[in-house]
Amino acid sequence: MKIPTQDVTASTSWHHLADLAARPFALNNPDALVRGDRLESMVCRSAGLKLLFATQRVDHEVVKALADYADEHQLVEQFRAMRRGAVLNRIEGWESENRQVLHTSCRDLFSVRPADPASAEQARREFDKLRFFLEEVDAGVVQGAHGQPFETILNVGIGGSDLGPRATYEALRSFAVKGRSARFIANVDPDDASAQLSGLNLARTLVTVVSKSGSTLETLTNETLVREAFYRAGLDPARHFIAVTGAGSPMDNPEHYLRSFYMFDYIGGRYSTTSMVGCVLLGFCLGVEQLSEFLRGAHAMDEAAEASAIGDNMPLMLAMLGLWNRNFLGYPTLAILPYSQALHRFAAHLQQCDMESNGKSITRTGAPVSMPTGPVIWGEPGTNGQHAFYQLMHQGSEVVPVEFIGFLNPQRGQDMVVRGTNSQQKLIANLLAQAVAFAVGRNHTNPNKRFVGNRPSSIIIGERLNPRLMGALLALYEAKIVLQGFGWNINSFDQEGVELGKALAGQFMRQMSEDGTESSTLEARLLSLLTN
Amino acid sequence: MKIPTQDVTASTSWHHLADLAARPFALNNPDALVRGDRLESMVCRSAGLKLLFATQRVDHEVVKALADYADEHQLVEQFRAMRRGAVLNRIEGWESENRQVLHTSCRDLFSVRPADPASAEQARREFDKLRFFLEEVDAGVVQGAHGQPFETILNVGIGGSDLGPRATYEALRSFAVKGRSARFIANVDPDDASAQLSGLNLARTLVTVVSKSGSTLETLTNETLVREAFYRAGLDPARHFIAVTGAGSPMDNPEHYLRSFYMFDYIGGRYSTTSMVGCVLLGFCLGVEQLSEFLRGAHAMDEAAEASAIGDNMPLMLAMLGLWNRNFLGYPTLAILPYSQALHRFAAHLQQCDMESNGKSITRTGAPVSMPTGPVIWGEPGTNGQHAFYQLMHQGSEVVPVEFIGFLNPQRGQDMVVRGTNSQQKLIANLLAQAVAFAVGRNHTNPNKRFVGNRPSSIIIGERLNPRLMGALLALYEAKIVLQGFGWNINSFDQEGVELGKALAGQFMRQMSEDGTESSTLEARLLSLLTN
Repeated sequence: MKIPTQDVTASTSWHHLADLAARPFALNNPDALVRGDRLESMVCRSAGLKLLFATQRVDHEVVKALADYADEHQLVEQFRAMRRGAVLNRIEGWESENRQVLHTSCRDLFSVRPADPASAEQARREFDKLRFFLEEVDAGVVQGAHGQPFETILNVGIGGSDLGPRATYEALRSFAVKGRSARFIANVDPDDASAQLSGLNLARTLVTVVSKSGSTLETLTNETLVREAFYRAGLDPARHFIAVTGAGSPMDNPEHYLRSFYMFDYIGGRYSTTSMVGCVLLGFCLGVEQLSEFLRGAHAMDEAAEASAIGDNMPLMLAMLGLWNRNFLGYPTLAILPYSQALHRFAAHLQQCDMESNGKSITRTGAPVSMPTGPVIWGEPGTNGQHAFYQLMHQGSEVVPVEFIGFLNPQRGQDMVVRGTNSQQKLIANLLAQAVAFAVGRNHTNPNKRFVGNRPSSIIIGERLNPRLMGALLALYEAKIVLQGFGWNINSFDQEGVELGKALAGQFMRQMSEDGTESSTLEARLLSLLTN
Repeated sequence: MKIPTQDVTASTSWHHLADLAARPFALNNPDALVRGDRLESMVCRSAGLKLLFATQRVDHEVVKALADYADEHQLVEQFRAMRRGAVLNRIEGWESENRQVLHTSCRDLFSVRPADPASAEQARREFDKLRFFLEEVDAGVVQGAHGQPFETILNVGIGGSDLGPRATYEALRSFAVKGRSARFIANVDPDDASAQLSGLNLARTLVTVVSKSGSTLETLTNETLVREAFYRAGLDPARHFIAVTGAGSPMDNPEHYLRSFYMFDYIGGRYSTTSMVGCVLLGFCLGVEQLSEFLRGAHAMDEAAEASAIGDNMPLMLAMLGLWNRNFLGYPTLAILPYSQALHRFAAHLQQCDMESNGKSITRTGAPVSMPTGPVIWGEPGTNGQHAFYQLMHQGSEVVPVEFIGFLNPQRGQDMVVRGTNSQQKLIANLLAQAVAFAVGRNHTNPNKRFVGNRPSSIIIGERLNPRLMGALLALYEAKIVLQGFGWNINSFDQEGVELGKALAGQFMRQMSEDGTESSTLEARLLSLLTN
């Protein structure tokens, strides 16, 4: 597939959007929301989720113009090409990773004709290996070194090898097989490992060490700490440790690990939750059936992201509304606010997935971008946030677009009526009330009780946060991020911006271990300032 | 104390800063950091913490101008007046809360002459009640309804009654008395309560219900759910529940609670961690001695915030550097990045404390502000973030100022050398490396490997995150936020922006409970969209 060379801001559809942005829809006009069928017509459905966007600052003309933008720049065609193996992780004319982008193949296991047969076959092979392994664990064929069954899975990984699996586990832990749970060590901070190991019954613990290269410094360090704990407990780590890594990496070694599950170079860490990176842990905790449901939900959303019409393509709609807010209305951040405590780490995952993908300043041909790219992503669950940072969102000087996420039913089914409504109803009532309050605002004689309104949001709604909808939700955002990156013509799949810090950290570590050989360098002076 | 009426942007010192901002210090010039004694001279020490700010885009002339700004607008004088009982929670000429602001009195227990004797006396009375109660708990005089000692404290509260206590508990849990721990229910999401109650031994659980008004809907609802669980377990809640509330509130009722501890109207929720809101829970978990250390640390920082010279006043320095970044360099967000896993919820607390305080658009005389106020605050622990969102911070189109927080020693003391350094050294090396990388950047022929640099940060360093330094850190940010609010001449102590959402949520709940009496309202149409 050819990488587009045109500056997107020079395109016809960009100019049209810029014209429309001179008079964006005013949400705070009287009756703005209730007039006609605005509410009912601004709805988009995909893979069991519903998107309501009447509280965005768009009218149907803007939505049409956003669709035209997607068409002119062939965003959906690029997504289709991506799923079929196009080499889209590259910068044309410069040294770059030069790889395919095929995280979607991890869940393309359910049809006779997968989009990219070769990678889908690799995914199926790993999935079958995992299923077989989990059957052995369930049957007690595979046990800990002291002959005890496994109860806890301890994940040692950082970044993409931590955030997605952790957010998904937290989202679905109420569906866990009885007696099974997960813990996570990510930070090189020794207090992280120490806290997570505390009170853990190692004899019943499976450890997954997750690193594609097999050389991530934090992960290797923490693996060493955890192995030490196993040795001290008289347990052979090779009976407890699983490697999730690239084939042939230093970690791909049956002498040290019970099993190796493979990651492939066409899947970036932040898109790897549905690969073995997430599946080993989720399969152990949820069982293979529920894991399959999770993958089915993600696959259904991938299919939806190929729909040509924006009204049928929720990831595209979300991506284009984001582009409108970022580039034409000029908002620098995006808050993701799930009204679901189970999603309490989902914004942290999306922070990585979005900001690492689209926090870029050059196009796919190496030219400086001519518009702002990825926003700062942040968020915490509602209703908690309402009692925290919503003050600024209602009355502060910064406009913060919002993506609300909510579900009609609780996961656990324990609820009761207090003052006329149950808790789940209160939760949904608050979500809707906030979207309306941000949009409509309120006039008042007292300036401190005035709300200007006109603050845009979208509402994503599902029946109940189960494995299938969690898969759909995860894939919705993965596809949104990718489509938005195509819209900016940037490479959403590399992360060169993390390299400089790594190199400089190495210099500081050398200074620390070589202990004062040089005293006038920047490193030495900064270190000496810390201690004096 | 008179509220200033002048528009701060019309002041001499504002104009001077605006002039200086035309040519801010370039951190990415060769040798910018190492030239002269820049590194060593840009250090500020208060209450056991050290602030390094050579990686901010300031020179000594800007620091002087920021100090002049603080002087012209009498920021420290206002802070002193606040601690001495001035009525600073008000909007001049308009109906407002009209209250004193005396959270600092909660820790003003250690001198014979507290800054505000009346409120310090009230604080001491509550502290003594708490100490006496905890002695009874320790001695087994107070036990659960089945005669078992208390092991877990379950906090039911939201916003300020949750985030500060939770962040502090997480920060200090490695100092907990053996066998004691805390859990938290905040969200009205029924899955939150259900998850927290799961596996909890209620017979050994103390419950603190925290609400100043005694009428917070989420908290009342969750309290009802938790009481039900106690009834089902055959336990009398009155033997397990503690009220932390305003004297005379509906919750201040000995028939329903074992004890009442009081909150006062001169302490806002987001500033209440050192009041009984945090102290009951922290005292139970950490013991009275360590709780006192925590309060001593906070008090020491309050004292430091009264220093006239900006170089001796870390909260003021941090506040003014923030003003510079926000108003003169124009950055809309601030990332708080603790290199300490124990601080993993600290940014969430500061998100509330800062954004609810300074997310305002009118001055203290009710006029519209003429400059941006509080930024969006966000953050996650490093090194985790390095593998997540740092890509955008290094190479994205948005500049994100940073406040790094780090400690020289781990809390738990379990560490080992891997590849020449131990984990704590790796952690500190990474923190310093990131500050340098953001500042200095890197040139490269490949545009994708280029870092423009010039991205500002501060570094806050302490010896070890213990109760005393955690108190200092908490009070550092409380004082920073307050001083910054004075600098913008806004009221940092009210939160009118949360009221509209509450009112509208009430309308949705009525629609839900009265079940379809009206079908054409906004509320009815939105609710019907969710289910159809």
